Amino acid sequence: MPNHTITSVKGFRAAAMHCGIKASGKPDLALLVSDIPAAAAAVFTQNKIVGAPIIVGRRHLHPKNGGVLRACITNSGCANVCTGQRGIDDALEMCGLTADTLAQLTGDEIPIRQVLPFSTGVIGHFVPMDKIRHGIPQLAAQLSDSQQAGEAYATGILTTDLVTKTAHATVTLNGVRITIAGNCKGSGMIAPNMATMLAYIATDAAISPKLLAKILPHIAAESFNCVSVDQHTSTSDTFVVMANGLANNRIITTAPAIKKFSAALLEVADSLAQQIAKDGEGATKLVTVLVTGAKSKPDAKRAAFAIANSPLCKTAIHGGDPNWGRFVSAAGYSSAAMNLAKTACSINNIPVFKNGEPTSTDLALVEKQMHSKHIHITLDLGMSKNPANSHHVYTCDLSRDYITINADYHT
Amino acid sequence: MPNHTITSVKGFRAAAMHCGIKASGKPDLALLVSDIPAAAAAVFTQNKIVGAPIIVGRRHLHPKNGGVLRACITNSGCANVCTGQRGIDDALEMCGLTADTLAQLTGDEIPIRQVLPFSTGVIGHFVPMDKIRHGIPQLAAQLSDSQQAGEAYATGILTTDLVTKTAHATVTLNGVRITIAGNCKGSGMIAPNMATMLAYIATDAAISPKLLAKILPHIAAESFNCVSVDQHTSTSDTFVVMANGLANNRIITTAPAIKKFSAALLEVADSLAQQIAKDGEGATKLVTVLVTGAKSKPDAKRAAFAIANSPLCKTAIHGGDPNWGRFVSAAGYSSAAMNLAKTACSINNIPVFKNGEPTSTDLALVEKQMHSKHIHITLDLGMSKNPANSHHVYTCDLSRDYITINADYHT
Repeated sequence: MPNHTITSVKGFRAAAMHCGIKASGKPDLALLVSDIPAAAAAVFTQNKIVGAPIIVGRRHLHPKNGGVLRACITNSGCANVCTGQRGIDDALEMCGLTADTLAQLTGDEIPIRQVLPFSTGVIGHFVPMDKIRHGIPQLAAQLSDSQQAGEAYATGILTTDLVTKTAHATVTLNGVRITIAGNCKGSGMIAPNMATMLAYIATDAAISPKLLAKILPHIAAESFNCVSVDQHTSTSDTFVVMANGLANNRIITTAPAIKKFSAALLEVADSLAQQIAKDGEGATKLVTVLVTGAKSKPDAKRAAFAIANSPLCKTAIHGGDPNWGRFVSAAGYSSAAMNLAKTACSINNIPVFKNGEPTSTDLALVEKQMHSKHIHITLDLGMSKNPANSHHVYTCDLSRDYITINADYHT
Repeated sequence: MPNHTITSVKGFRAAAMHCGIKASGKPDLALLVSDIPAAAAAVFTQNKIVGAPIIVGRRHLHPKNGGVLRACITNSGCANVCTGQRGIDDALEMCGLTADTLAQLTGDEIPIRQVLPFSTGVIGHFVPMDKIRHGIPQLAAQLSDSQQAGEAYATGILTTDLVTKTAHATVTLNGVRITIAGNCKGSGMIAPNMATMLAYIATDAAISPKLLAKILPHIAAESFNCVSVDQHTSTSDTFVVMANGLANNRIITTAPAIKKFSAALLEVADSLAQQIAKDGEGATKLVTVLVTGAKSKPDAKRAAFAIANSPLCKTAIHGGDPNWGRFVSAAGYSSAAMNLAKTACSINNIPVFKNGEPTSTDLALVEKQMHSKHIHITLDLGMSKNPANSHHVYTCDLSRDYITINADYHT
C-alpha cells in the first residue's frame, strides 16, 4: 500500500508521543518538520479571543519574516487561551525549544520564528511546561519519514476525534509530479473543552511564500470555512501549508500552474473539511447544505449556515424526519433575501417544496433518503439564476451523544 | 384568590376548545374578544418566510385600517405556512367566521379586519377548515370573563409548552387604576413542528392605536426579542396588545403617563418572555446572559446572543460545568469588539475571569452555583463604561430531552 500520509511528501518528517498532559495516556505532543526551510502560509481563527499560540503564530508568519517555516509543534490537552503574558511566554518557549533541538540534530541554524506553535484543549489553564520541556527532545529524536511516523502524527494531533483525518493528492506541473498531503483534527469546531480545528498540509511544490499566502484564504473559504458542527468558532483554529520545493518543479508563477496547484490543494483541504463534519461530536450523518439562486454569494452563505447551525434542522436530520419546513424557515430568518413564490427545496435530489407550495412527492420516499449516511439539503432562494450566487456548508446531525459529550465533561 | 388571568382586564372575554385538529384531544382553538373595539398594535416575526396568518394580520393592522381589533382567533396543530394562496384564503375565512359569529352574538357590526388570526403547528400543511368552521360558533358561545375562561385561554393557546404562561400588572394613571394582563405560548422559538411564539396582552387603558404602535417595538425589543431557546425564529411569531379603554383613564398622551404605562406593559411582557425561556424544550434551567461594557448596544446584543445560542455554552450549563472559557470564546466569535485585557466574566456574581487571566476563585464554589435553577452569566467586554452599551438575553440549557423532543417527532 502506498504511503499516503503526510510523510509521503518529499522532505517531511513527523513524530508524536505522550508527554504527560492528557490523563488518558494518549499522544499529546506532535511535531512536523521539513528537511529544509519551506515556503509557508497560514490562516488563523477569526475569533477575537485568541490563544497565545495564535498571537505568536501571527508574528512568526508576519510578511516581514518572509513566510518560511521549518516546523510545527503541537500540544493537545491544554489550549493556552486566556492565559495572559505567561501564556505567550510559554508558546514562545515551545518554539524556542523546538528550534534549538532541531538545530542540534541537523546542524542547521533555525530561527525561532521558523517554528509555528499549536495548542488545543482547555481554555484558561497554563500549559504544563515541565512536561513539554522534557518531551520535545524525545519527540525530535523520533522524527521519521516512514508511513508509521505519518500515521502517528495523524493520531498525535487528535483530541476527541474518533478517527484520524488524512488526505492526499498529486498533480503534475510541467512534467513534474508534485505531492500534497495533509492531516487535520477537530470534532467540529469544538470538543468538550478540547476546542479547535487544526489543519496541516505539506507539499513538495516549489512556490513562493507570497503566492502561497495569496492562494490560501481562497482555499480556506471553500473548505474549512464551509464546516460548522456547532457554530462555536474556536480560539485556536489554524490551517497551515508548508511547501518545501523538493519536487524540483519550475517555481509556480503562471496562471495555469497556479490553477492546477490550487485545485489539488483544494481537493486535499476539502476532503479534510468533510472528514471533520463527518466526525463531528455525536454525529451519525454527514450533511451537505447547498444554497443556490441567492441575491449574492454572502446571502447564499448566510442562508446555508442558518440551516447548518439550526438545532431544529439538525435534530430533524438526526431523527430521519423529512421536515423541510425547518430548512426553509431557517433560511427565512437568516437575513438572506428570498422570493417565497420561487423558493424550491429538495432532499437528496427529491423536490419537496416548489413555487411556494409543497410538491406532491410522497414523503415516505424522502423519509427513506433521510436515513442515508450523507444527506444533501438543496435550497434555491429564487432570487437569481447566477450560479456564482451559491454556497455549500458541511455539517452533521445533532444527537443525544453531543449533549453527553459536552454536558457531562467537567472542567 | 384574585383573578390574574387575561379576563381580569375589564371588558375582555375568552374561550378555548378542542375542535379536532390535535390528535391528542387537547384544546386547539382559542378566542379572545374585547367587548368594544380596542386600540391595537402587533409585532410580527422577522422571518422572511411567513405564515398566511402573518400576511393577513399585517393587512388587518395596517395603519390605514386605524389599528383597531375586536378579537384574536388562534388555532394550534397546524401553522398554515408555505401554503400559498389557499392558506391566505383559509386565514381570511377564519377571521370572517369569527367576525360574523361575534356580530350575531353581540348585534354589533364587526369588520373582518378587526379580527387577528393566529396559527401554530406543522409547516406545509393546509388548515383543516371543516373542523374550524364547525368549531368557531361553539367556541364563541363559550366566551366568558370568568377566571376559568382566562385559564382555559392560557391553556388553549399552548402546543408543546409544559406550563401555561400568564402575567399581570396594574398601574395608576391620574388616579385611575389600569390593569394589564397577558398570556403567551412558546416552548422557545420552536417546538417539534409546533413552532412559534404567540403573545397576547390585554389592557383596559385608554391609549391611541398610533401611540400603542409606537411603544410596542420598544417593549418587544426588551422582552420577547431577548429570548432565544434555539435561535430558530418561527415563521408565525406574533405579539399583540389590545387596549379597550374601559378603565376610563384620561387617554395616555403625556410623557409621564407614557413612561408609567410602558413600564407596566414591559413588566408583563418581560415576565412572559422569561416564562418562555424557562419552559424551553428540554430545559432544566433558566439562563440570563448579560453583556456590559460593549462598544455599542448592537455589539452587546450580538455577544449576548452568541453565548445564548452556543450549544457548547448551553450544554456546559446543563452539565453544571463552570466552564467560563466557553462563554468568553462565544463572545469572541460574535463580531462584537472586545478588549481581552479588560474583559471580565462572572457566574452568579462570582468573578471567574478578569484582566485577561483567570481569577483565583475556587471553581468548586462556582460549580455549586451552576446547579441553581437560574444561572446568571455576566460578561464585560471592556470597551466602554456606558451602561447603555449592554444587553440581556434569556435562554435555557440544552439537554438530551431537547434532542428527544425534536428528533423523534415525525412529520
